Amino acid sequence: MEFISGMKERIVSEVSDILKSGLSEQVIVMNGAIHKVVKMSDFTFITLRTRDGLVQCIKDFDLQPCEDFKEGMTLKVQGTVKQEIRAPFGFELHLLNIEVLSRPAAPMPLPIHKWKLDTSLATKLELRPIALRNIRERSKFKIQEGIVRGFRDFLLTQGFTEIHTPKIVAGNAEGGSNVFKFEYFGKKAFLAQSPQLYKQMMVGVFDRVFETAPVFRAEKHNTARHINEYTSLDFEMGYIDGFEDIMEMETKMFKYIFELLDTQYHADLKRLNIKLPQIDRIPVVRFDEAKQLVAQKYHRKMRTPNDLEPEEEALMGEYFKEEYGSDFVFVTHYPSKKRPFYAMDDPENPIYTLSFDLIYKGLEVTTGGQRIHSYEEQCSKLIQRDMFPLDFESYLMIHKYGMPPHGGLGMGLERLTMKLLEEENVRETTLFPRDLSRLEP
Amino acid sequence: MEFISGMKERIVSEVSDILKSGLSEQVIVMNGAIHKVVKMSDFTFITLRTRDGLVQCIKDFDLQPCEDFKEGMTLKVQGTVKQEIRAPFGFELHLLNIEVLSRPAAPMPLPIHKWKLDTSLATKLELRPIALRNIRERSKFKIQEGIVRGFRDFLLTQGFTEIHTPKIVAGNAEGGSNVFKFEYFGKKAFLAQSPQLYKQMMVGVFDRVFETAPVFRAEKHNTARHINEYTSLDFEMGYIDGFEDIMEMETKMFKYIFELLDTQYHADLKRLNIKLPQIDRIPVVRFDEAKQLVAQKYHRKMRTPNDLEPEEEALMGEYFKEEYGSDFVFVTHYPSKKRPFYAMDDPENPIYTLSFDLIYKGLEVTTGGQRIHSYEEQCSKLIQRDMFPLDFESYLMIHKYGMPPHGGLGMGLERLTMKLLEEENVRETTLFPRDLSRLEP
Repeated sequence: MEFISGMKERIVSEVSDILKSGLSEQVIVMNGAIHKVVKMSDFTFITLRTRDGLVQCIKDFDLQPCEDFKEGMTLKVQGTVKQEIRAPFGFELHLLNIEVLSRPAAPMPLPIHKWKLDTSLATKLELRPIALRNIRERSKFKIQEGIVRGFRDFLLTQGFTEIHTPKIVAGNAEGGSNVFKFEYFGKKAFLAQSPQLYKQMMVGVFDRVFETAPVFRAEKHNTARHINEYTSLDFEMGYIDGFEDIMEMETKMFKYIFELLDTQYHADLKRLNIKLPQIDRIPVVRFDEAKQLVAQKYHRKMRTPNDLEPEEEALMGEYFKEEYGSDFVFVTHYPSKKRPFYAMDDPENPIYTLSFDLIYKGLEVTTGGQRIHSYEEQCSKLIQRDMFPLDFESYLMIHKYGMPPHGGLGMGLERLTMKLLEEENVRETTLFPRDLSRLEP
Repeated sequence: MEFISGMKERIVSEVSDILKSGLSEQVIVMNGAIHKVVKMSDFTFITLRTRDGLVQCIKDFDLQPCEDFKEGMTLKVQGTVKQEIRAPFGFELHLLNIEVLSRPAAPMPLPIHKWKLDTSLATKLELRPIALRNIRERSKFKIQEGIVRGFRDFLLTQGFTEIHTPKIVAGNAEGGSNVFKFEYFGKKAFLAQSPQLYKQMMVGVFDRVFETAPVFRAEKHNTARHINEYTSLDFEMGYIDGFEDIMEMETKMFKYIFELLDTQYHADLKRLNIKLPQIDRIPVVRFDEAKQLVAQKYHRKMRTPNDLEPEEEALMGEYFKEEYGSDFVFVTHYPSKKRPFYAMDDPENPIYTLSFDLIYKGLEVTTGGQRIHSYEEQCSKLIQRDMFPLDFESYLMIHKYGMPPHGGLGMGLERLTMKLLEEENVRETTLFPRDLSRLEP
């Protein structure tokens, strides 16, 4: 009988191994794809793309094999590490042996080896699996990994539990018609627009929960900041004293995330020339005051008393940057009319809710607030909105059998990444975007 | 202007804080839901359910408020910590002050305070948000968190990148009719049955990738091991020498996960009386040999030469437990006919593939293998199966422009949790199961 022990020794080196060894001259084996080839008279420069970055290799003219090296070939090479300050990581490999692992069937359709991929967004999305091989393109998604990782790691330190709630649902949590419908074994089903009701249910179980999962919105917006499927980072916490506790938790969370990016994702940030924002403290302003501040400073008429127009959001970003040096601002007490049925109204003035948005560089990146926990209150708010408590029977169980005061927030990962990376279109920071016209790749 | 700094001091204690302080006699504040109330002549025992577990509290007869304490109320209490070896964590709280945060509207529909919730699965699922408040029920999902956390943390140490791929897709990766369809802005769309094609695309970008996300299968099976939406743990890695590298990685991963569960989820395992499996080495057997071994030892006729029947899987589990003391066995070289179009055939005998399943206690919990990386080979396998390369144009880009030898695996989180926790039905370890008859809660 043969066995697998998980103890097989690794003979292939990564860039990190070589850096750890202090670039000492040694013979190593490395894998990678050919990113670029430059032929000189006596030798060839081969740039290998590895998962850590680019590695410069030198192949002497007489080293076998003598075939035509092309972009997109994958290789296993053996070579001697030599210090070379002009090379990406301060070393290059003098090749001793080359094994070709695979060959492409066609020449590269994009100049992915260029530092900046000067290609239209449409083409980049069309050729997504290839365009992402550009190392600056892929760095965006490495940083995105860091955001999610920071989100989870931080919340675990705060006693949160990770949950996995269904995306096929019977009801329509957020209301509205922006929902994808389909047939589920003879019943009508929807794709979840948010894990809202489920995460509230789980507060009754674990007190503090989070989820990082896809959500689906059938919105017909075709803007630079909307997509129809995105990754939602959600948390929900019980035993809050007020919705300020949620803003506190979010602020701490961002400090943790930026610290993690700074230490673990430094190379990717540098590659994209991104400076992380300062986040010592975040200004807090009421919705109605915020509208006034912007109207006064920028001589703007208020047209929609219950909504922040995109332009107002952008100006609010400017205002707090100019006046307080902050990229972030919490806008609180949104009108009850514009918030969902589970939002808790402000007892001091019930036309407003105990809720907030976080605006980052002029764009909403988080929506949060306190939720109703009393059964009577939740039933009467549903009825007041011409909704039927019976349609929400399993959700209302939590209120009926006891819920602590609680609240939480949700944020779109791709939009947050867009703002952090100073991109203009959320599709730039979405791996495979889904929008009105795009269902592939 | 007000600010949020994320520096607000925490005044509420958790069980872990009290344990850290060595149970010293001190006055603390704690939050929790009333899990159980027992009235004595001079005082009342109140058991508080906190996220760490149950805390025993003593309320003297004359302490205010004098209202009727009921299960499901949530409280903020102030009390003195007293050592008490018979109490859950070795201490109890002598209450000094009680603030009622919320009151339920109805008495608990289930005896969730009991150690074992002796209720039918149907009732538990019907009342899921409440049933999960039983502390043994919720421990299942705490352990499930640990599995996912171990999966991610381990893969990050191995140079993998986390990705988020779309669940709304244009094609049908795994073939077959078991797919949910819906209309997407006038086009036909499907719910992803697996992230397979996308994770392969991303191997060309990051070499090693993983994803933990929902997948959807419109299978009409109504068995104890099938559900129609589940959390799939997937990884995919480039530059493999063979599919054995994937089994090596999986074995190391399980060692890491079980180590994490042992150290960080000990209380939950103990609550459920679960002994973690030994996994020093995992036997490996070919599909055809495995069928013969089982047929010989258990005097069973082989009826389906290309498939493992559920009963055969179960007997294989028994066989390797009896003969090698292993809960796990890798079964390799599944017939090509039964594997998808992207599976690499064994060059030594192309009726088999370079693939494997991991059987855990007699049930398949992982499917994996090496994938085709050559463009010509992949196109011809599609054609051979009466499929059209043009339908897979964006997928085939990766083969066309160069892919390293690669492979990976996928496993169902809920099913794995079921086997680890020795449950008989996957619904026991699915937070909110979706099956033929269940779309709510």
